[in-house]
Formats: sequence, C-alpha cells, structure tokens
Amino acid sequence: MTTFEANFPTSEYQRRITKTRAEMALRGLDAIFVTDPSNMSWLTGYDGWSFYVFQGVILTHDGDPVWWGRAMDTLGARRTVFMESDDMIRGYDDTFVQNPAKHPMQELAKLLDELGLASARIGVEMDNYYYSAAAHAALLAGLPQAKISDCTGLVNWQRAVKSDREIDYMRRAARIVETMHARIVELAEPGLRKNDLIADIYATGIRGADGHWGDYPAIVPMAPSGMDATAPHLTWDDRPMKTGEATFFEIAGAHRRYQCPQSRTLFLGKVPDKYRDAETAVLDAVEAGLEQARPGNQAQDIANAFNAALNKAGYIKDSRCGYAIGISYPPDWGERTISFRKGDTTILEPGMTFHFMPALWLDDGGLEITEPILITETGYECFCTTPRALVVKA
Amino acid sequence: MTTFEANFPTSEYQRRITKTRAEMALRGLDAIFVTDPSNMSWLTGYDGWSFYVFQGVILTHDGDPVWWGRAMDTLGARRTVFMESDDMIRGYDDTFVQNPAKHPMQELAKLLDELGLASARIGVEMDNYYYSAAAHAALLAGLPQAKISDCTGLVNWQRAVKSDREIDYMRRAARIVETMHARIVELAEPGLRKNDLIADIYATGIRGADGHWGDYPAIVPMAPSGMDATAPHLTWDDRPMKTGEATFFEIAGAHRRYQCPQSRTLFLGKVPDKYRDAETAVLDAVEAGLEQARPGNQAQDIANAFNAALNKAGYIKDSRCGYAIGISYPPDWGERTISFRKGDTTILEPGMTFHFMPALWLDDGGLEITEPILITETGYECFCTTPRALVVKA
Repeated sequence: MTTFEANFPTSEYQRRITKTRAEMALRGLDAIFVTDPSNMSWLTGYDGWSFYVFQGVILTHDGDPVWWGRAMDTLGARRTVFMESDDMIRGYDDTFVQNPAKHPMQELAKLLDELGLASARIGVEMDNYYYSAAAHAALLAGLPQAKISDCTGLVNWQRAVKSDREIDYMRRAARIVETMHARIVELAEPGLRKNDLIADIYATGIRGADGHWGDYPAIVPMAPSGMDATAPHLTWDDRPMKTGEATFFEIAGAHRRYQCPQSRTLFLGKVPDKYRDAETAVLDAVEAGLEQARPGNQAQDIANAFNAALNKAGYIKDSRCGYAIGISYPPDWGERTISFRKGDTTILEPGMTFHFMPALWLDDGGLEITEPILITETGYECFCTTPRALVVKA
Repeated sequence: MTTFEANFPTSEYQRRITKTRAEMALRGLDAIFVTDPSNMSWLTGYDGWSFYVFQGVILTHDGDPVWWGRAMDTLGARRTVFMESDDMIRGYDDTFVQNPAKHPMQELAKLLDELGLASARIGVEMDNYYYSAAAHAALLAGLPQAKISDCTGLVNWQRAVKSDREIDYMRRAARIVETMHARIVELAEPGLRKNDLIADIYATGIRGADGHWGDYPAIVPMAPSGMDATAPHLTWDDRPMKTGEATFFEIAGAHRRYQCPQSRTLFLGKVPDKYRDAETAVLDAVEAGLEQARPGNQAQDIANAFNAALNKAGYIKDSRCGYAIGISYPPDWGERTISFRKGDTTILEPGMTFHFMPALWLDDGGLEITEPILITETGYECFCTTPRALVVKA
C-alpha cells in the first residue's frame, strides 16, 4: 500500500505522548480532547485539510490515541496516523456536517462514553480556533457527568523544545524561505503587478529548495506596499509596484507542515533617510535582542533588550516582537505559547524555536526585518542566511 | 491616500446591512457580534489575514457597524472598510494577544457596555471557527446583564442570493479556475513531482485570467493520487505522478475573496473500465441533478435526483453532493448554509450559487467531476466551461 511517508518514527510519537501524559497527570486529567490541527498532527501524524469540520484526538493514560472526525476523513487518517489499529480511527456520519439540526459533538459524547470516559476528568482546548462555543455546549450537554475543564495550550507547550528531526524540517523550510526572498530581489521592479510577484513567490516556495519539497505556509504571503504597509495583515491585489515605495514581505517556507517564517522589506528607488534611520534602529535592536537569546534567559529578556535599544533610537513599539514557531496549520504559524514581550518569564531552553519579529510601522509604511532562530546549548542560531538589511533596488 | 480599491459601493454594504437588520428584528436581537471573517467582509468590506486573533463586527439597528480587533489591525480596517468615521474602528491593546492571563473578549465587553449594550439582546456566532468556547465564556462573564444568544448562520443566510457584482466576481474566479485546470492538462505527466505541479497551479491561479488578478483560495489545492485519492482531504508531497494512477484536483479560482471551486480527475495511461464506468455514472447523475436546478425547487431535489441516478448505476454515496459558495476565507470555501442533501428543503432562488460536488470515492482512488453553478431565472448556468469528463493523458 502506497501511503504518505511517515514524517516521524512511531517512537517519536510515543515520546510526545509520554510527555503529554505527564502533564495530564500533573493537572489531574484522565483524558484530553485535542482539536488544534497542529496538536493533532504532533500527537498522531494526522495531516489533511479537514479542520473545517469538527474533529480531534482523544488521549487517555492507556493505549494509543484515538483519531475522531468526519467518516470520509477516516481514510485520510488511515493514511497518515501512526496508530495501526482501525479501532483507533473513528468517524461520524456525514449528516452531522454543517447541519444546524444536530452537532457532531453529540457523537463525540457517545464515543467518550463508549471509551469509559462518561464521568472522567477531560481537558478540552477551549481557546482553539476549531473548538467553537457551540461545540463546547454540545459536549457538556452530551456528557453531563464528566468533569470537563480547559486545557488550552497543554499540548502546545509540550511542543516548545524540538527534536532533531523537527529541527531538520525547520532547516529545510529555512532554505525554502531564503530562496523565496532571493526570488523577490530578482523579480521586483516598478510596474510589476503585485499578484504576479506573489504567484512566483508561492510557486518558488512549493517547489522547495535543496531537494526538499515545499508545503503550504500556514499564512498566505503578506506583501503590502506604500501606505498599505502601515497595516500589518493586508494581502495583495494587482496594483503595480512603484518607485519610491517600500513593500514588506512577510512569508514562510514550509516543509512537512513545519514553518520557517521570515520577513524582509524592499524599497524601490532612492531610500529616504527616514527608512535608513529606521533600518539602523531595527538592526541595532535586533542585535541587542539576539544577545539575550540563550538558555537560562527569559523570553522577556529578548523583548526588553530589543525595546530598550529601539527606544534609545527614538522609536516605540508596543506589540510583541516574537513568538514560538514549529509545526502549524492555518490560520497562524505561531505556536501560541511563548511571546517575546515584557512579562513573559518563560526560561529559554536549547531546541526552542522562535520567530524574532521586530516589525516597525512608520506613518507612511512598514519595516520588517525578522529572524527565525533556534536556541542552542550556548546561545542561538539564525535559521536563515538571508542578508539582514533593507533590500534596495534602484 | 492610496487604498485598496473598494470591492463594492457603500450602497451595496448598506443594502446588506438593511437585510441583516430585518432578520435581527425578526429574532428580537438588538445587536449581533459577527466573527466569521466572510461575514465581517460582507458587511463592512474588511479584508486582512488577521482572523488568527480575536476580532469581529458589531451591528445594531442604528448607524454604521463597528469593526473591532487588535489595535495594529485597525490600520488595515481603515484601509478596507466602508465606514468613514474612525469611531467605527476600535482596537484592543496588544498585550491581550495570545496571553493566557487575560482575554480580548474582556475588552469587547467593555466596548459593548460603552455602546449601551450592557443589557441588550446580543446574537453571537456560537458555531464559528473564530469564536472559541473561551471567548464565549469571557464575554458572558464580562456582560452579566446582557441576553446573549446564538445567531450562527444569521448573516451567512443573507449572503445566499448574490448581487450582480458578486456574480461578476465569481465569473472572474471561474475564468481563473478554468485556466488552472487547462494548465494541469498541459503539464501533468509521469515523473512530474506533485509539488512542482501544485506550484504551477498556484501561480496560475494567483496570476489570474482575463485581466483579473487571482486572490488566495480559501482551501489549498487538494491533489492526491492513487490510493491516497481514496481519501478526500490530503494535500501534496513530492512523489512523482505515475502511469496507471488517477489524481483528483480539487481547486478553486478566487477573485476579491470570491471563490469558484471546481474539481477534475486526471488519469495517466490507459483508463481501467472501472473508472470509465464510474465516469459514466457520475456524468449521468450530474445531468439528473442539474435538471432539478431551478428556482422553486428545493436543494434536496438536486441531491435526490443525483443519488437516484447514481444508485441506478450501482453506486452509493452517502455524503452531501453540494453546498452554497461565494465570498470566503480559510478554512472553508463553502457558505455553511444550504447543502445538496436529503432533508434540505431550502427553496432555490435566482442568484444563488453552489458547488455541485458529486465526488465518488472508489476502493482504489477517487473521481471528482464537479460544477460550480448559478441559479438563474429559469434554471441554472454552469460558471465554468471546463470540459465535463475524466481527463486522460496517455
């Protein structure tokens, strides 16, 4: 049988499960129901664009996890998860899909009952994209004896320190995003329609680099120009690039769902002093931040050093300047755990991976020069070799 | 000031708001808080990849709607929404972003209070991707006097009948998906890495067609081959295409967030009788279904006719065979309202748009030959001219 090549050996999934169970035990949970697609994949290998319907992974303290979802998606589960027994893959009837008259979580409640969990202490990811308020209400109604509590982030936190193989995948994604940035430098010119440039960036990313194929990024390329670049999350249209305008490219390379985001800013024409000053300030502040990137320091140490340097240069940035990265599905390539910001006291450990994302928004544009990094035994390593500077084409 | 070109005139947003308010009045709602990105865009024009943080649109019975989201995204709102007053664009502090210690919905509760809605009857989209169980709990806690109820689908249903301009955008998206399918026929051959083909499809879609630029589809291309095509929602890797294998391509063209999905199946080499038989059965059943596609009929009439024809040919399909389409953001290009399935008694009206999606999964592969359609005054129109047949390259 031809299947998708397993991304990790079963032993790696078992290690992840053991780690997760330890945290479940600490919190007094008999089971967790995990709906974050990244967590589902990290625990079982499941991969498919099926998160637009209700699905999840049930993990107890015994045996393999159970994948649960729409009946037609059990076939995709069969081809991607590490569990060998079909009993560990359970589907619900298609009539439950997007049908206001009934809810798939009624079926999940029955399955949890069948698994002996009707009165169990069950953690659910209450603050996950794919766990709606209605889903929660239906589950509570279907399992009135269970003690259901919030375990948002429980699995995400187990993902923070990456295995060697995960880091390999992120390095492959790094080669891909480097190639995408190199292609932007090559193609960008006045008159080029923005969507034509994005088309090429996308294709470059999916072709891959260094012999490794590209997967879809968890966020589409963001590439606003001029005044639109005062806003952080606009995508693209067909307006041509113009001399005298800055464009930032917030993009990611992806390999086997592992994401390596990196942003660069391109200026067409003569760079105004304002942008050169901002560039100098950001680069100095990035250096100051990176000096704090080592095991034993706290996440906020990076932000505080970065912000202090930026303030000294006369700039103020009040949003966070980085976040944990790794495996991810839309709509976010962040892990939603550690942030580089004041007050985040998470201790940095070797194997943690971050997007150090010091974006600066000016009154007439934006400047993003960012670095995906790995915390090493002694400090940090930048995943990418993309030149750290404002990109200028005259 | 250069801004993203408005996708619709303000008068069209006002018509949509009037229609939505009528339904709110029927349900006794003073206000709704809308978090579905498609609904946010349909009501205000807002467009940005910011739905990975909490945001929404507040609509009452008076004045313009209020866009609410992360402070940094107010700039993107300013550049895309129809509302002219800055009072109608409200942001929350970045420290609320992905911070377990506090929730953005606490800030929303304060804003609703400020708007005089502390004791109001407020509808929320309880079964939306971007309205989590935790968000709901935080809102209830922050507005203890309000009567908060579920209004999932309220706005989605108002979107069912499209305006002429919306249909124009879907026609442009149709030209794009036709071009993508033509490109697949041109490029596919044994030995081609799947990701290289996907790279080209993506680029083709974003370059656009007929002079109109391509936007990002709400679902990435799904293109499994061989046994992987027994599963509906797998994406791609780098395994080369092979003689003797079927691959289905479930893809969409997109223009200004309007989606036109269409699937085709490609066979490399000599087609086994099994696939020819399935093709004949599907094409006959599609014809039978389309004959029922006219104003006054019910959505289930199409499904029942389709299923009867399929059963007669010896095939059984128990999943729905179509759904409403229009404007959309990830993770789904469907409108999540009308389905072509038994029991859906929605009356078809001119201007409704659907993806008639009669996928058939065989024991060793899948067959998808689908049609996006528009209900007209007298019957239906297929958006695309892509040849309706199994695609074969010898």
